[in-house]
Formats: sequence, C-alpha cells, structure tokens
Amino acid sequence: MFQKANLGTLLGVYLPCIQNIFGVLLFVRMTWIVGMAGALESFFIVLICCLTTLLTSISMSAIATNGVVPAGGAYFMISRALGPEFGGAVGVLFYLGTSVASSMYIIGAIEILALYMAPSIAIFDDMFNNYRLYGTVVLILLCIVVFIGVSFVSKFATLSLCCVIISILCIYIGIFAASVDNSLEVCVLGDRLLTSESVKVNGTIWCTKNKTGPIFNHYCHEDNGTTICDHYFVQESNEARLVRGIPGLASGAFKQNFHNYYTEAGDIIGSEIPGSNRRGEIIADITTSFMILLAIYFPSCTGIMAGSNRSGDLADASKSIPVGTILAIVTTSFVYITCVFFFAACIEGHLLRDKYGESIDGGLTIGFLAWPNEWVIMIGSFLSTLGAGLQSLTGAPRLLQAIAKDNVIPFLNIFGATTKKGEPFRALLLTAVISEIGILIASLDYVAPIITMFFLMCYGFVNMACALQTLLRTPNWRPRFRFYHWTLSLIGLSLCITLMFISSWYYALAAIALAFCIYKYIEYKGAEKEWGDGIRGLAMSAARYALLRLQEGPPHTKNWRPQLLVLMKVDENLQPKYPKLVTFAGQLKAGKGLTIVSSVLEGNYIERYADSQAAKLNLDKLLKESGVKGFSDVNVATKTSDGLCYLVQNTGLGGLKHNTVVMGWPYGWRHTDDERSYKIFIDTVRNVSAGQMALLVLKGINQFPESNVKLRGTIDVWWIVHDGGLLMLLPFLLRQDKSWKNCKLRIFTVAQVEDNSIEMKKDLQMYLYQLRIQAEVNVIEMAGNDISAYTYERTLMMEQRTEMLQQMRVKKTEITLDTVPEEDTESSTDPTLPDRNQFTFTPQNIHKTKSTGQMGNNLFNVKPDNMNVRRMHTAVRLNESIVEKSHEAQMVILNLPAPPKTSAGEESYMEFLEVLTEGLDRVLMVRGSGREVITIYS
Amino acid sequence: MFQKANLGTLLGVYLPCIQNIFGVLLFVRMTWIVGMAGALESFFIVLICCLTTLLTSISMSAIATNGVVPAGGAYFMISRALGPEFGGAVGVLFYLGTSVASSMYIIGAIEILALYMAPSIAIFDDMFNNYRLYGTVVLILLCIVVFIGVSFVSKFATLSLCCVIISILCIYIGIFAASVDNSLEVCVLGDRLLTSESVKVNGTIWCTKNKTGPIFNHYCHEDNGTTICDHYFVQESNEARLVRGIPGLASGAFKQNFHNYYTEAGDIIGSEIPGSNRRGEIIADITTSFMILLAIYFPSCTGIMAGSNRSGDLADASKSIPVGTILAIVTTSFVYITCVFFFAACIEGHLLRDKYGESIDGGLTIGFLAWPNEWVIMIGSFLSTLGAGLQSLTGAPRLLQAIAKDNVIPFLNIFGATTKKGEPFRALLLTAVISEIGILIASLDYVAPIITMFFLMCYGFVNMACALQTLLRTPNWRPRFRFYHWTLSLIGLSLCITLMFISSWYYALAAIALAFCIYKYIEYKGAEKEWGDGIRGLAMSAARYALLRLQEGPPHTKNWRPQLLVLMKVDENLQPKYPKLVTFAGQLKAGKGLTIVSSVLEGNYIERYADSQAAKLNLDKLLKESGVKGFSDVNVATKTSDGLCYLVQNTGLGGLKHNTVVMGWPYGWRHTDDERSYKIFIDTVRNVSAGQMALLVLKGINQFPESNVKLRGTIDVWWIVHDGGLLMLLPFLLRQDKSWKNCKLRIFTVAQVEDNSIEMKKDLQMYLYQLRIQAEVNVIEMAGNDISAYTYERTLMMEQRTEMLQQMRVKKTEITLDTVPEEDTESSTDPTLPDRNQFTFTPQNIHKTKSTGQMGNNLFNVKPDNMNVRRMHTAVRLNESIVEKSHEAQMVILNLPAPPKTSAGEESYMEFLEVLTEGLDRVLMVRGSGREVITIYS
Repeated sequence: MFQKANLGTLLGVYLPCIQNIFGVLLFVRMTWIVGMAGALESFFIVLICCLTTLLTSISMSAIATNGVVPAGGAYFMISRALGPEFGGAVGVLFYLGTSVASSMYIIGAIEILALYMAPSIAIFDDMFNNYRLYGTVVLILLCIVVFIGVSFVSKFATLSLCCVIISILCIYIGIFAASVDNSLEVCVLGDRLLTSESVKVNGTIWCTKNKTGPIFNHYCHEDNGTTICDHYFVQESNEARLVRGIPGLASGAFKQNFHNYYTEAGDIIGSEIPGSNRRGEIIADITTSFMILLAIYFPSCTGIMAGSNRSGDLADASKSIPVGTILAIVTTSFVYITCVFFFAACIEGHLLRDKYGESIDGGLTIGFLAWPNEWVIMIGSFLSTLGAGLQSLTGAPRLLQAIAKDNVIPFLNIFGATTKKGEPFRALLLTAVISEIGILIASLDYVAPIITMFFLMCYGFVNMACALQTLLRTPNWRPRFRFYHWTLSLIGLSLCITLMFISSWYYALAAIALAFCIYKYIEYKGAEKEWGDGIRGLAMSAARYALLRLQEGPPHTKNWRPQLLVLMKVDENLQPKYPKLVTFAGQLKAGKGLTIVSSVLEGNYIERYADSQAAKLNLDKLLKESGVKGFSDVNVATKTSDGLCYLVQNTGLGGLKHNTVVMGWPYGWRHTDDERSYKIFIDTVRNVSAGQMALLVLKGINQFPESNVKLRGTIDVWWIVHDGGLLMLLPFLLRQDKSWKNCKLRIFTVAQVEDNSIEMKKDLQMYLYQLRIQAEVNVIEMAGNDISAYTYERTLMMEQRTEMLQQMRVKKTEITLDTVPEEDTESSTDPTLPDRNQFTFTPQNIHKTKSTGQMGNNLFNVKPDNMNVRRMHTAVRLNESIVEKSHEAQMVILNLPAPPKTSAGEESYMEFLEVLTEGLDRVLMVRGSGREVITIYS
Repeated sequence: MFQKANLGTLLGVYLPCIQNIFGVLLFVRMTWIVGMAGALESFFIVLICCLTTLLTSISMSAIATNGVVPAGGAYFMISRALGPEFGGAVGVLFYLGTSVASSMYIIGAIEILALYMAPSIAIFDDMFNNYRLYGTVVLILLCIVVFIGVSFVSKFATLSLCCVIISILCIYIGIFAASVDNSLEVCVLGDRLLTSESVKVNGTIWCTKNKTGPIFNHYCHEDNGTTICDHYFVQESNEARLVRGIPGLASGAFKQNFHNYYTEAGDIIGSEIPGSNRRGEIIADITTSFMILLAIYFPSCTGIMAGSNRSGDLADASKSIPVGTILAIVTTSFVYITCVFFFAACIEGHLLRDKYGESIDGGLTIGFLAWPNEWVIMIGSFLSTLGAGLQSLTGAPRLLQAIAKDNVIPFLNIFGATTKKGEPFRALLLTAVISEIGILIASLDYVAPIITMFFLMCYGFVNMACALQTLLRTPNWRPRFRFYHWTLSLIGLSLCITLMFISSWYYALAAIALAFCIYKYIEYKGAEKEWGDGIRGLAMSAARYALLRLQEGPPHTKNWRPQLLVLMKVDENLQPKYPKLVTFAGQLKAGKGLTIVSSVLEGNYIERYADSQAAKLNLDKLLKESGVKGFSDVNVATKTSDGLCYLVQNTGLGGLKHNTVVMGWPYGWRHTDDERSYKIFIDTVRNVSAGQMALLVLKGINQFPESNVKLRGTIDVWWIVHDGGLLMLLPFLLRQDKSWKNCKLRIFTVAQVEDNSIEMKKDLQMYLYQLRIQAEVNVIEMAGNDISAYTYERTLMMEQRTEMLQQMRVKKTEITLDTVPEEDTESSTDPTLPDRNQFTFTPQNIHKTKSTGQMGNNLFNVKPDNMNVRRMHTAVRLNESIVEKSHEAQMVILNLPAPPKTSAGEESYMEFLEVLTEGLDRVLMVRGSGREVITIYS
C-alpha cells in the first residue's frame, strides 16, 4: 500500500513502526493512567507491555529471517512457519484485532474532537451517544476514502507520522518549559478536585468556602431554617484552594504521584468515597486497577508488525525487519517510559486523574503541558489518530483477503473477491461492520481491552512458534537473526498468556475458544497446504516419546490385549482378498489394541516397489472403509513364506508390536497340486509359535458378519486344551462389539471317563465366575474307546487342564498362574509315534475325497497307519459332537493343535483340521502364545 | 483388625461403614452449618458430599469386584488396579487423610468434653490451648491403648457403633418430642443473640432493656453525666426478649431458617455488623460461605472404605462390598438430609448459628433437641468420637505399614517393621506425630478442610481409575458389579476436582503437587511390581493415537528430518560390530528424528529365535550406552541380503518410518574371495534407492569420534552432484551436536572449463546465504581433459546443478524446488556405455593390488576397457584434489554415485569408491532420496 520501491531499514521499517506504535492512547489516556496507577506502577505497566512486544518482535525477527521473506507480511510469515491451522487462527485474530483497532482510533478521534476541540458539536447529553453518532459518520467517510483513494491513504500516513513526531517533540519541550507556566489552575476542596463548571460563577472561578460561593451551595442546604452541611465541607482542614495544574518538574509533584490512587467506579477520583456530580466532584467512570489499566494501555504498544507487513517493499527484508522493528520498539518504549516519569513529575495529581479534564473546562491535560499551546497536540493527535484509523481500515480488509485467498478457511472465501480496480470491497464491508460494533461500544476504556486480547493472543502464537521450532530442533529452523533464544520466546509466551488471563479471564477464554474453533475448523477442512507446517515435528516427537515410554517390556497379564497382525492375501489386482479379516479384527479391537494389516508380494523389491505402494494404498483404503484405525504394511519378498516370516518377526515398532496373528484358512490347499499353499500356512503357524505369539485362524471367513450386522445366538467355545485363557478372552472381547453383543457364550469341555464330569462342570463354573465371564458350561462325555486316540495325543494337555482345575479348587492362597506349561511339550511327543513317516496321502487321493464323511471310509481303503486312522477317527467323533451341539452357533471357537514338527505329517494335519471343522459355518481356531492372557485377579 | 471370620454384608460391611461415616461433625457442627447456610444450601452441601461419596463408592465397587478381592483392603484394591505409581500416591493420601482424621476426632472429643460436658476442666482462657493440652494427653493415651490392646479397639468399635445409633435415634425421637419442650430459652436483643453469661445476674437471666439490667450496662455508658447508648440499643424496634430455643416442628422456624446467613469473621452471627464480645454479642469466629462449610462438612461423608478394608474377613467380598457400602451411604445420606430439614424446622435460627452454645450456658444445641436429655448425646457422641479416633489410630499405621511392605516408596521402608507382637510401632509413631500436628491446629474448622482435601483427592483417583479402565476397554476390566458407568465415574471425578479447587485452590494445588511428587518418585525408583497397572493401556492408546495422527503422508520439505535406520552387523557373539555407527546416529539426531538400529541374523527363524532376542538385547544395551533414544530390531533371514531388504522395506510403523539408511563400508570386500560381501552392500544401496530413501555410508567408522570428544577443524563437503540438499543439511545437523560444534563447514565444488568459476562461487554463496547455512565456498577448477571421463559420466547431473544455480539467479518469483530431477536418470546413461560388460577384474588381481596408488598402474597393465580406465583416472584425479584440500578435514562428505544396474560393473564400482576415498580418515558418502530435503523458504 506504499510506494513499491526497495526501501531501507529507516523508511521501510523503522518509521512505519513508529507511526503504528504511537497511538491515540498516548494523547488521551496516558496522563490518566499515570495519575491512577502512580509513577511506579505506570512504569511497570509500560515496562510489561513494552517487554511483551519486544520479546515478540525478537521471536518474529527469527521467524522472518528463517528463509526468503514472503511479500505478504506478518500473516504470511506466520502461516508459512506454523502451518495452515495456526496460521489461520493467528491471521483471524490479527484481523479482528486490527478491525477493532480501527474503532478505537475513530472513537479516539471523536473524543478529541467532541470533548476538547469542538465541545459544541455534542448533540446528546450522554457523551457516548455523540461518539456513536459521529463515530459512525467518520467510519463511513473513512471507508469511502479507503475504497476510492488508496493512494490518499499512503500520503496521509506520512502526514500522520509528522503529526505524531511534532506532537511528541512539543510535549518534550513543554515538559521543560512548563516549570514557568502558571496559567492553568484547578480548584480543590480538601482532597477533592472540583469541576471548573461547578465553581464558576459568570465565567469566574470562585474557589472558596464562602457562604455565597458555589461550593457552599453544593455542599450545604437549608432545612427548617437550619443550614445543614456535608461533614466533609464542615471539617476545617478541608480548605478550598486553587492549585497550579502543571507545577512543573521542580515542584514536588512526583512524590505525590508516586503511588497509586485506584478508584472504584462511582467513587470520587483518588478516594474511596462515593461522589456526586451534583456537588461538582469528579467521579471515576470505571473501576481501575493495575490490570485494568494495563489492558487499556496495551494497544499503545501494538503495531510492531507494521514493518514486517511491508516485507515486499524492502531491499533486504531479513536485515531490515529485525533491526527496524526492535529499534522502533526501543524508541517508543523510551518515549513512553520518560513520559510516565515526566507526567508524574510535572502535573498535579488531581489533574492527572481527571480523565476528561473536567476541572480545566474540558481541556486535554497533555495539551496544556505541550509547547506552544494545546492546539498543537489536539490537532496533531486528531490527525494522527484519523490516519491510524485509515490505515487499520486499509490494512484489515487486505489481511482478510489474503487469508481468504489462502483458502484455509472455506467460509471466508467470499471475502477473497476484489472489484475491478483490485479493491477488496467485501472484506472492507465486513471490516466496517466489525468496526461499527466497536464504535457502538463507544468507550475507549472498553474497546481497548478487546484489542489487547486479540493482539496478546496473536503475539503469544508468534512466541510459541519460535519457542517450539527451537526446542524441536526442526532442521529447517535456521534463522539468520541470531539473537533469539527459546527462553526469551517462552517468557514472551508466558507474559502473553498471563496478561490475557489476569486482565480478563473471560475475554481470554473467549479468545482462546475462538482460536481453538478456527484451528479445529481448518484442521477439519483438511487444509493440506503446500507450505507445510513447523508444528508437525511436535506430533512426531509426541509419537516417538509415547512409543519409547511403552518400550518397557511385555505387559502384565492383566494388561494383555490382542495386538493384531492381520496377514492379508492380495489378488493380482493388488486388492485385498478377504476384507472380512479386517472387519473381524475391528470387532475384536473393542479391546482397543493395535491392528496392522500386512501383505506379501512375491518378486523383486526394486521391480515391485510401485506395486507394493499400490497394495499399501488398497490396504489403507480397506482399513478406512472398515472403520478400523490401524496401520498397513506390504512386503516384497522372493518367497511368500519368507515374506510372511519377516512380517511375523518385524512388524511394529518398539512397544507397538503385534502379539497375535490373524489369518484365513487356506481354502484351496486340496484343490491345487501345488503343495505350497498349505506349506505356507503351516510354516506361518510354526513361525508364529516360535515368536511366542498367539494365532487366530478364521475358517468360513466370507460368512463372518459385516460390522453393521447384529447376530443373535451363541458363541460356542470348545475348550479342549487350556491355552493361556485366550479361548475365554476372545469371546468376551468380541461381545464388546455390537455385532456380537447379543450372542451368548457357551463353553463345552470334553470329559474323559476317569473325569468326574459333575465336579468338572462345577469347577469350570467357579473358574469362569472368578474370571467374571458369563457363560453356560457344558461337559461332553465321550466313551473311553471312542476318544482313546485323541486321548493318547492329548494326554499331557488333558492332564494339565485337569490339574489346573484341581489347583483352583484348593486355591485360597495366591497362586501365580502367569506361567502356563508350554504347550510345545505336546508336539515333542510326536516323534515317539514310530510310523508317522510311512503314512502318506497322495495328493490325488485327497483330490478325490471331496466330502470328509466319505474320506473316513477312503482312509480305511488305503490302509494307512493305524495311529493316523485313530487320530482321524477322533477328529470325526469330535466333529460329530461339535456339529451336534453347535450347529446353530454363530461361531465355534476351537483350539488349533500344534503342527507336526516334520514336514511328513503336514498333509494329515491339514486333513485333521478339515475333518474337525466340517459342517461348521464360522470357525475360529485359536492357538495361545504360551503365556497367560487372562487372570482372576484384578 | 477385627475378628477373623466369614462375615456377611450386614456385619462385615454395612455396620462398619455406618460407624465410620457418622462422625463427630454431625454432633458438634451440623446445627451450626444448617443455621449458617440455611436449609436450602445445607441440603445442597449434604447432597453434593453424599453424591460424591456415592459415585465414588460405585467406582470403588467396580474396582473391588474386578477379580478376586485381595485381603488388604481399599489400598490394595486400588494399587493393584492402578499400578504402583497411582496406588502409592493414593495410598499415601489416604494415609495422611486418615491420620489427620484422628486429630479431628480427638479435637472433637475434647471439644465435647471441655465445652459441654465439663467446662470446669478448662485451664487456659484461650479454649484452643485447652484443646491442645488435653488433645495431646488423649492422643498419648489412645496411642498406648492402640499399642497395647488392639483387641480392646475392636470391642470399643462395637460400643461406639451402639452409641452412634442410640444417639441418632434419640435425636429423631427428640425432634418429634421437641414441639412440647419449653424449657430452653435464649435472650435476643433485636436481631442479636446474646450470650447467657452476659444477661445473667446472680444466675438469673435478665433479658430486658431496663436500666438496671445487664443489657443496658453493656450497651450504654455514662459520659459527663449524660448516658450515651449504642444506636442499636436505642432503636425501639430492637426489643430484648426471651425466645424459645427449640420451638419444634410446628413453629415457623423452617421459613426463618430457609436462607443463608453467611457471616464474616468478627461480625455478629447472621449479620454484617462487627460485634463485640464485651456486649455479650455472639461473634462468628470464622468467615463462612457455601464452600467453606462444604469443606468443613465433607469429612462427615468419608469412611466409605471401611467395608472394603475388611475384605479379608468377608465371606463373599465381591457381593458384600458393593451392596453394603452403597446401602450404608444411602442410609447415612438419608439421616443427614432429614437432619438438615428437621434441624431447620425445629430449632430457632439464632440458636442454630450459635456454634458453641454460648447463648445456652455453653450447651450442646443438638443435645437439647434429643430425648430424653442432652447427656445422652454428649456421652454418646463423646464415646463414639473417641472410638472413631481409636480406629483411625489403629487403621492408619497399618495402612502405612502395608504401603511400606509393598516397597514402592523406598523411603517409607523403615515403617514396614513390626514389633515382636506384630504391632507396627514405627508407623504408629509417625501417625501420632502427624496427628499431634493436627491437634496443635486445634480448631475443628481448620482441620476438617485438610481432611477433605486428602479424601477428595483419593476419591478422585478411584473415580479416575474406573473411568479410565472403562474407556480404555482394558480386556481385564470385567467387574462383576454391573451398575457402574464411565459417565458416573467421570462425574464423580469432576465433582472431586471441582470441590477441591473451589473449596481451597491452594490446598488443592498442594495436594496435587504432593500426589504428583509421590507418583514421580515411585516412577523414578522404577517400581516394576508384579501386579501390573491398569493405566498402561493409556500409554498404549497415546502411542497409537500419536502414530495415527502422523500417518498423513510424507512431510513437507521444511519438515524433513533424517529418520535413521542403522544397519548394524553383529559378530558371532551377537555383539554389535561397529558401535560407532550408533554414536554417529546420535550426533545426527540433534535434529531429533527417529533412530532404529537393526541387524540381520542368517538362519532359520524357529531355530534362531533365542539368538535374535539376545541380539536385540545387545542392540538395546548399545543404544542405552550411547545415550541414543531409539528402537532396535533383529531379523532372522535365510539370506543376509534378503534380510536387509526386508528391514529397509518394513522397519518402522505408520508415520514413524525411516527415510535414511545408515551403514558402514564393507571393509573386507577385497580381502575375501567371497563376492557376497560387496554384493550385499550394492544390493542394499539399490534397495534403498528403490525405496526412495537417502543413504549414508560411513567409511573409517572406527575413527569417528566418541560422543564426548570435541573436534576442531573443518567438515568438507565435496558437492559434485545436487542431491536434494542432503549434503548441505547433514553438516548443519551434525554441527548442532557438541562433538562437531566447533568444526567449520567448507563446501568444495568442481568447475568445468566451460563454467565461469567466479560466477559459480558467487551463486553458490548466494544459495547458501538463502539456505541460512554458514560455509566457506571453494571452487576447484580441473582441466577439461583431466576430468572428461568424469564429465561424461556426470554430464547430466552437472547440467542439472548448473541449471539449478542459474535458476536461482533469476529467481524472484516463487519457484517450487520441491521436486528434484530424479538422479536415477543418471544411471540410465550407463547402458549407453557400450563396453561395460567386457571389463572384469579377477578377484586375485584385486587381492594383489593393496594400495590404490599402484593400482592405477596395474589398471593400465591389464589393459582394461578405455572407458573404465578413464573413469578410474577421474577418481584418482578427484581423490588427489580431495586429499590436497581436505587432508586435514575432520570429515569429508561426498556424493555416493549410483551403483551399476547390472552385476557386471559392481566390482569396478567398489574399486571406484575405494580410489575416490583413498587417504581420507573419515568419509561420509551420501546418496539422496530423490526429493528435496532443504529449502530456502521458511
């Protein structure tokens, strides 16, 4: 908005900052603040505000010099450094702050005009209504100027700057000249300042307690012939006297003005006594305190981004911005602080506290201090304030337009439009509306804290950005400006937050809520901007920290939860083959564990890299569609079984590793001549066991329910072997999901002849009660000879289970169940079977026997090894029982026996499993990890 | 501590709870609270307190029924459910609460004794000093009783319970009988209650304003013969009159007592006027408000864990605890709430507010309400209060002893000791000391809020435990008590926190700080208890959530930071071979990225599972020793190169995947006949490239500095090919580490004849300035013929680089540098070389040529393909330049050229690299990922 030239530090940054920082408050509120807070506390008010802006400007300098400075100004710098979410939030806050600031300038200008320069223009008795009326008029005029003549605005800025500098110089001269000025006097009764109006009779001040004087009339009245006077008036020590308003530096005024005179609204200024305007006492219109005054004063220090906003016009932005901005802050801080002390030293305390100059005929106190007379300041401050208003009204719409054009906040998009001449008309309109709201508030003392809040929030973000990037050591964080430090930024941030909350916690909460909403809105709209964000490192650090915390060894039994690795086949189009596996994992994950879906592609990594990425995308899509929050991974391996082995070994990171592998049943194994299909399956079962993980094999995967289906019926667990309790835990977890919620749990266990089945049932019921799992218990008795083969094979395990139940019966002391007898001991019995290697099916044989019912007979025809016949017979018998009891069950959960150690028995192992699960719709075969996963203890 | 029997719900839980909940406050403060807060607000006070305990007891019931209830009581239940950290913190808070509660009971008992029962025993004028004296005496006596006769305590508990029940029954009877009791009268002047003492003359009450009466004497005095009276006394409307203290239900007292009469300390009770004891006015001794009264009242509702503490004695703890506790709370709540309304309805308002019964000769107001007379209540409350004190003094040391025995807070261990008789003497001593501190505070109104704070904190934790476990869906969270819900627990938790902060935020902060310190202390001491913790799921969820958030695609260039996968060889003892690789990774990680150290073991997974775990432990140890926070992984593969390929592919999870692979140079490749050693290296280079990751190869790894060494000198970058900027970024990151901090960065680039080397230097300096990296730039000119072969090979890349620098020169518009020309195009030029396949070294040849200096000659002798000679010649020439310029550099960073596509050129590729880096101590060869990792934009 200024001349497009390669400006240097002085013209490009320093002077614009000076012009933006010095504002209306210096002229119309500074004396009052010094009077109310006293020299000491005013000094701290100024110091805190200046320190906040100084620290912020240091942080901003670091951000501005971290890379090529974009042309768009502060908003661009911050949004590019912080990412769209923070950038948008900061941008909107900054926009709102600037818009409301324009109200402040307009109100300030009108206050100077209607109170001090031309009191006669006041139409309403309530001065605020005059502000509202004239403020609106001025706003409309300014908007027209902004819309029609932007070039005028930039010229006016120069004038405005001159006005400010001249005014301040005049004040300084006045301060030293004031010691000889005797003309300004105010009338004081005791300790109470009186309005000049109340003590004037025919234009002459009668500052006396004489019975004929105006003061007497105000404080006394006739009652039944007796004169009754206010007791304050009666006290002789309270004299009426004229005192010099500006006694000058040499007087003792400083001592008198050193301490604070905070006053509650309605009290006489500087005292704790309710006053009365009728008596000519000057009454505080608002309650004052350190923080209230600070909030009113703070906007005097804003404007530090004026230089950065001109980044496009600077010859060397990354040098000029830090130097110019910081110098400007130092200059203005110096002026403010010296003003505090000089005002306190020069001006009479009562007059200082007289906000609207009621004791001096409605004059501008600071104007009387200045040399040569008050009109210099009045005109100067009026023009500079109008100029500031013009600039806010020019800058704010352009900022809004920039935000809108960034397209991070979709609902602002309509404000991105410009007229043919390039003016952001709609944005100007919105700014005018916001500004008008501010004008309707009418009081500078109420508008200023709102601006304070927005700017503090915005500055806080700038400091936070700098601190975070330094602390996170973002590699890209290499500011050329060296004199920043994260502690400075952190102090700046703390100052901003503290000031926000102390000055007004409800405003602060509202501003934070607003920023939060904008942040979340932008995040929700998924603004993925090409400019990246510096905050991402935070998410990264958080994830790393969280993972490192987890990495403290395996969890306690009571914390065991299934962390699933789903081994998913992909077809030739790289689409997942059995998507229901993921659905099932999602249903199990009611236990809120981890889900990783992985696939293996066969081939050479270098050639199939693109395929692996495509497959990963498909898996991610599947995860998203199934509503399962999890991770995916695709591995390219020369051999599928090797690839699966690596997945089983190395998937996950740190504490987020799987402990349970989920896979589908290899349906095709009997229909293909290739023995690999079941080899891969059995190898994976072996690897999973070796890795001490649990394994879930789903048979009938396509019959498993979709996530929106609600099943009713039973889940039947056939508890043949005690396997760490996984058989009990899984249905419990499944039943947390709404698909399985309405299924009842039934547990079947097989009793041997020597078992006491009634006792067994009672024990099992007790066990389940202590596990706090509700289930119906059934004990199935099988004749001894019928299951002898099975018995033989499972003897050890059976004994283990029986022993476990017996242990429970005697358990009153605390038994640690955490180590289960390793089930692997069972497979070690296999080598004792002498004739396993002699027994082979030819693949053809299997191919013929389509139904397992027939197969039993076929088995006899080929006269296989007796052991295996009995084994298969067991499977048939057990299957008969299962089908009989559980044919209507929604799911049958079974133990998955250990695979044979040698490759010879593999085919019969597969056959055994087929026979066992024949005729069942949905089967879940479970193999524990060898550790206890459920406990009766809390 | 009670009889070891299988108790039922009534005897085991209900009655102990009743006895513990009803306490001294009901007798000595309830009337006063009702009077001060009014019936309405008292009702809410009671309601809020009871609601808090009710919700807590629901949460506690869920925790108690989640598994076999341990014998140790509430502390055990909570610590086992929440883990040692939370358990310890809750335990200590609970202990402190109970200990301070014993002070409260003792002070209460003394108050009843010294104020109401036997006022004559008072020795000091200040009643609090009497409390202190007698309190200490009673404390000592009770401690002796506890130490000598625990059996007496349990018997006394029964007596105490009887006393409570009888007292409450008497109160109820009294309430209905009171309507006919006229005997109790109090003297009221206007609206001011007068002490009975002040209106008594010779034992008779003179409640009259007569000039001879005591009231006149108090309110008036003679002054110069004129009688001057207080204006309150003068007003005729303020009559002196006797009113009935307990007018009974039928009177209109309830209406009068409906609203609050909060009073500031020093004011006359129920008014806002400062009073004077001298005039017989009853003055509020503490300021009251809703929250202050709530804090004083809350201990009346504690004691809900009395049943749970008896868990060891219960026949069926998981049934009795919920039912008994909740019933007890309902019962006591009912009593409290009816008491509130009955007190408000029966008792005169002034008398209600008279805390110490000063208007009724120092009588216990509630005593006069009761039937048949006040002694029932006085004796009953005295005995029951003493009983409660005894129990606190018995329970607290045992709790402390239990915590000490758990060994979670080492410095408490000395309190785990017991005497020969099994008494925890030391713990009793500490309890007595804490109790004595409470007694020295002396005022019930100051001690009660402290207890409130401890118990609220403790109850908050119980609610939090229940809510967390429900929300995290811990698989082990299966409480048999069904009527809990996380919303209830959350409301309970919010209530606890809100009450804590509203009632006294500094106490609350202190309590939270205390709990936090205990938590951190236990965590620091690393208490890994066998009982696990239910909170672990939180860390898990946090890690999962953080990772899922990250998984949003690759980061923007400005967020790129090296995430290292260090490929580590392990020797036959499974020890890492080049630990310096991890040191180097740590030095690079100043960029705070991820580090994963992985190894491959050759063999079969099932057989080498144990080895892989051992190797992983060694890697973890190495990480810990190097002070690098990272992860480790070991993969068992049939072939090492396959294993490395899988690691490169699948290490990491979600957003925490590596983008840079670090590996050592395969030193042995020339000394072994096995061609695998360099095959594996080149395969890995290829795989890393295929995976679009960056690669760092360290040569001279053993010369790399330890983490505590500080190097001085230069880091020399030989910028031959622009490779995404990694060459610039790496030294910048290294220099963040203290080992490399003092090294200066020099960048060398090779100019071709057609390059303008001065222009080139200027451009490069400008580029580095914009990158904000400080480095010295050197351009090395090489004669055209000298490097023609190199030129030929690298032409494309050179052109890319030159073009890039030129682009920068014209860059004023925003150029997106994010996509680098893929370096792979370079290797595609290789196949155009016609004679690559003809050129082979035999391994023998290489074996002979030990120094590369000779090898150059040898190369000519074997007359290899001209192309390769020139290529090698280039390497020699380049190496000469590097050695000349950088022989003193602390590290040389070089581009790693792309490996040959076919296996034929592999050996010459290795030879080329050897020649290139000959004579350099520490070399880092870098290959970019094909994407830009550094940007001039912020």
